[in-house]
Amino acid sequence: MTDPSPTPQRPLRLGIAGLGTVGIGVVRILRRHAALLEARTGRRLEISAVSARSRSKDRGVSLAAYGWEDDPVVLARRDDVDVFVELMGGSDGPAKAAVEAALAAGKHVVTANKALLAHHGQALAEAAEAAGVALRFEAAVAGGIPVIKALTEGLAGNEITRVMGVMNGTCNYILTRMYNADLPYAEVFEEANQLGYLEADPTLDVGGIDAAHKLALLSAIAFGTRVDFAGVEIEGIERISIRDIEHAADMGYRIKLLGVAQMTGRGLEQRMSPCLVPAASPLGQLEGGTNMVVIEGDAVEQVVLRGPGAGEGPTASAVMGDVADIARGLIIPVFGQAAASLKRATPARTTTPAPYYLRLSLLDKPGALGKVAMTLGEAGVSIDRMRQYGHEDRTAPVLIVTHKTTRAALDRALEGLASSDVVDGAPVAIRVEML
Amino acid sequence: MTDPSPTPQRPLRLGIAGLGTVGIGVVRILRRHAALLEARTGRRLEISAVSARSRSKDRGVSLAAYGWEDDPVVLARRDDVDVFVELMGGSDGPAKAAVEAALAAGKHVVTANKALLAHHGQALAEAAEAAGVALRFEAAVAGGIPVIKALTEGLAGNEITRVMGVMNGTCNYILTRMYNADLPYAEVFEEANQLGYLEADPTLDVGGIDAAHKLALLSAIAFGTRVDFAGVEIEGIERISIRDIEHAADMGYRIKLLGVAQMTGRGLEQRMSPCLVPAASPLGQLEGGTNMVVIEGDAVEQVVLRGPGAGEGPTASAVMGDVADIARGLIIPVFGQAAASLKRATPARTTTPAPYYLRLSLLDKPGALGKVAMTLGEAGVSIDRMRQYGHEDRTAPVLIVTHKTTRAALDRALEGLASSDVVDGAPVAIRVEML
Repeated sequence: MTDPSPTPQRPLRLGIAGLGTVGIGVVRILRRHAALLEARTGRRLEISAVSARSRSKDRGVSLAAYGWEDDPVVLARRDDVDVFVELMGGSDGPAKAAVEAALAAGKHVVTANKALLAHHGQALAEAAEAAGVALRFEAAVAGGIPVIKALTEGLAGNEITRVMGVMNGTCNYILTRMYNADLPYAEVFEEANQLGYLEADPTLDVGGIDAAHKLALLSAIAFGTRVDFAGVEIEGIERISIRDIEHAADMGYRIKLLGVAQMTGRGLEQRMSPCLVPAASPLGQLEGGTNMVVIEGDAVEQVVLRGPGAGEGPTASAVMGDVADIARGLIIPVFGQAAASLKRATPARTTTPAPYYLRLSLLDKPGALGKVAMTLGEAGVSIDRMRQYGHEDRTAPVLIVTHKTTRAALDRALEGLASSDVVDGAPVAIRVEML
Repeated sequence: MTDPSPTPQRPLRLGIAGLGTVGIGVVRILRRHAALLEARTGRRLEISAVSARSRSKDRGVSLAAYGWEDDPVVLARRDDVDVFVELMGGSDGPAKAAVEAALAAGKHVVTANKALLAHHGQALAEAAEAAGVALRFEAAVAGGIPVIKALTEGLAGNEITRVMGVMNGTCNYILTRMYNADLPYAEVFEEANQLGYLEADPTLDVGGIDAAHKLALLSAIAFGTRVDFAGVEIEGIERISIRDIEHAADMGYRIKLLGVAQMTGRGLEQRMSPCLVPAASPLGQLEGGTNMVVIEGDAVEQVVLRGPGAGEGPTASAVMGDVADIARGLIIPVFGQAAASLKRATPARTTTPAPYYLRLSLLDKPGALGKVAMTLGEAGVSIDRMRQYGHEDRTAPVLIVTHKTTRAALDRALEGLASSDVVDGAPVAIRVEML
């Protein structure tokens, strides 16, 4: 027998900080499935104490059986806590302090906090590994989809070549709703706000930052590099117009806020930006708050994972997967290999060629379309498909899908078009990603 | 600190039995990614010795550095083997003997052998758990997709409500090829045979048995029951005609060999059978050898996993994921909870209502269609959509999609139709599954 059994029989005791939707979801699962979880992990899972901003708030579930701490740092250090479950959020402040305190006290940590890890992942991973404890964050990326596990463990035999995905349910909701209801961005944004789908700072969602946090975490695992959130090229969905969504649909595409990370000869490309994807592709068909992550590896080829990106049940499911792993004795490096061995990534601007969708307003002048084609040709950008619509007032919308081109060539073309006397205003350019 | 670090530094030594495509794929990954695997698992992964039927066969990769055993049982017991990797296949014979020998000798086992586990999973799991070793089989189900891991670990916080999937790439290849090339079953079967896609005994593939083995393994994990392969209702694809594929397509469906397992009040329903699925659904769009597994749980709602179902790289990737887990010290019960605690499943005939697709040949008699409708109505089966095509010779094809109905009501209706004087021969009935 090579390894000792890692399933001791004493209970695993949790301290849960943050009792919003997800925190309460975790409490509910622990109660509902106490017997199931014990059968699966070989241990009883118990809540020792909880912490949140307000003790008196009615959360629809009694917390009387658990200890209470006003200060999550105190909770993190309690003797009767083996696993500190951080569900407060925020890249700094109490969440960071409490997670640091837990790790310093030799407690395992399970968190759903992508911002915290995107900004402080390296230091926290080093602290966890020095203490010999687990720091797990399945719930931080793609809600209920066990994607961190798939990437870190299931696909450990692969050199990962590319990771991509739709990882912000709110943006995907807004974009699909704009398309389905034929509504402008501002109106759907307001709807989402009313429905409570947006973060307190909505820029985190619609600005692509939340999704970029997630991408940076996946990149670190995939490529064995230190989390490099600053290296993610980020563009939000705020400037996506209903016209582009409709025009893209006319040409067989959907617009998605898509993250792509790949290691190239020049360094690590990470970008989170609106992209066109084929309407009939798995990504194109993704509706509402559903997330999808595509992992490509040299052995496995391609694995696609789809599931709910947020919500009480799905996110709590991901938290509980991590807790169950810890109960079963699984303690692996935070990003899949020792934090000290993670290389500093060289961030690379996106140079991988792709087709681009262009929309421009053509002025009603003789030879105008020819001039556009010539400008593109001079920049080295060749045209796959072009459509000119009828003139509205004094301009006519022109849509172009280019052949694969580099961003550099495209930028030359865009510059040429913007300064041309046949194009009104700056053209819109959106990358096309084929899955 | 709660748990000891599970990553000792001495090498993990493998013995690989079976050097077909997958075995060689595993050897290749171990060589190509030696450094990567060591970084990820904290240990060197070494091959001590291998075993296969022929020592002299050229496999395109030199095996000179490894010991050789003609007898896999001897390999399984070698002192310098920590993990026995069984890639021979077969539910009995040498594979079973060698796995039993490995477990008895306290070695971890990684296998891709679904037949072995479908038939002997309970005894082998008990043996592994008694010895305190891992018995892992990610490669046995859905090729490169880390679905066993997702179900056993990532979704451990869920009560699983349903598992379904397309899990035999060969059948899916045959069905999609029939549709795309408009070819009859026999012709595509022969093509698949020429291409080497079929098992030595093709009934394992086209008879649905291989896929049913996989479903039985997923069921055991999902529902905490002993593997009950005998309880799977199995129907192969041999009788699917190109006409049904085309008619189904006309009505917006594709035909897939689909496995479904769910726990009901009457017991465990497990079936592997051709089904109609909406053409635009993720399952409907699955082409060629790709597999898809859908897992539904009370917290996570629905997770869909898609990836290559077979092939050297993907299957070896799954094997290596298991090996990496063992190297990292993850040893959990084989089916996700102690084998002794798995309940004996009560197999239940499928009673969950579903719509059905019916095709029948209507004889050219006055009032014939009315009689069909009446027969269905008398059996309690109501019609959602019906299409009658023009008469060919003396009969006319009639297609019906029913509303949701029980199999019992449907059987009454089929009996009535078969004995009716307006229907020629026995009607074809295929279940419709909505995803």
